Amino acid sequence: MKIERHDVAARMSKVVMHGDTVYLAGIVADEPKGKNVTEQTKSILSQIDGFLKKAGTDKSKLLSANIWITDMSTFQEMNAVWDAWVSLGNTPARATVEAKLATPDYKVEIMVVAAK
Amino acid sequence: MKIERHDVAARMSKVVMHGDTVYLAGIVADEPKGKNVTEQTKSILSQIDGFLKKAGTDKSKLLSANIWITDMSTFQEMNAVWDAWVSLGNTPARATVEAKLATPDYKVEIMVVAAK
Amino acid sequence: MKIERHDVAARMSKVVMHGDTVYLAGIVADEPKGKNVTEQTKSILSQIDGFLKKAGTDKSKLLSANIWITDMSTFQEMNAVWDAWVSLGNTPARATVEAKLATPDYKVEIMVVAAK
Repeated sequence: MKIERHDVAARMSKVVMHGDTVYLAGIVADEPKGKNVTEQTKSILSQIDGFLKKAGTDKSKLLSANIWITDMSTFQEMNAVWDAWVSLGNTPARATVEAKLATPDYKVEIMVVAAK
Repeated sequence: MKIERHDVAARMSKVVMHGDTVYLAGIVADEPKGKNVTEQTKSILSQIDGFLKKAGTDKSKLLSANIWITDMSTFQEMNAVWDAWVSLGNTPARATVEAKLATPDYKVEIMVVAAK
Repeated sequence: MKIERHDVAARMSKVVMHGDTVYLAGIVADEPKGKNVTEQTKSILSQIDGFLKKAGTDKSKLLSANIWITDMSTFQEMNAVWDAWVSLGNTPARATVEAKLATPDYKVEIMVVAAK
């Protein structure tokens, strides 16, 4: 099966396709400084839409998602944005846990696997 | 490749099949309140058995597992239940780390990928 | 699709192949006691090279990586070793978060998925 990569950098690629399976990097908000969990989650999901599009797929084909939030008390705030975004009837397997992220500005990180 | 989902809710699906690969959601204990790590792990693995069955597979075809426990001092307690459950000779790739989960009642969460 | 396992133990396997996809366990440093993040990351990536070889593949076919470090202030130290190791132009999707690991001696754990 063919491997195809998009947004390839020296440390990681944002999109890696292997046959019909698409792996995305853990995505964090653009310009996170001062953005709340709602704004960060919106930024992340919008980026994920873009990366899935580059891979020739979309959120209705999500298979699995790992979500990290830095403060579990923001779980509902993150979920409100997530619930409004996912494709009804086509929701992925998902797990959410609390973890510190790369810098204190980041409050949410989401990593998904999708089908093409 | 075909995508098939079971136990689909508005936020996530518990079982997502893509071709011959089965993704399960992060599973936590049923009625966790007051249950210890042994009891929670047993509840989780029993639910995983059920979800794998719905996908037409079983624990002898596990590929990979991510385990989160809220207190690493319970690692051996979780492992005792895990070790008694896995299919000898067919154990998955696995990683276990400590993380806070969705509510303080949850002490263990397990997310697996299996083959059909 | 065929499942093939290497380094199979009673708790987990280090390498699980399913068709053209290779799942590795979360790998930690050999003899971690007193080793810093640089040394531990080198030990881990060297072990990953060995496990990928057993699966008939190599780091140029990495699809995805999850990295856990116990102290986010060591992020750059881990990255320096990672950046020198990855196959330029063939970097995987990646996410790094902070988490406590199985024993306090471990400072880094890395779990990858690769193609054959």
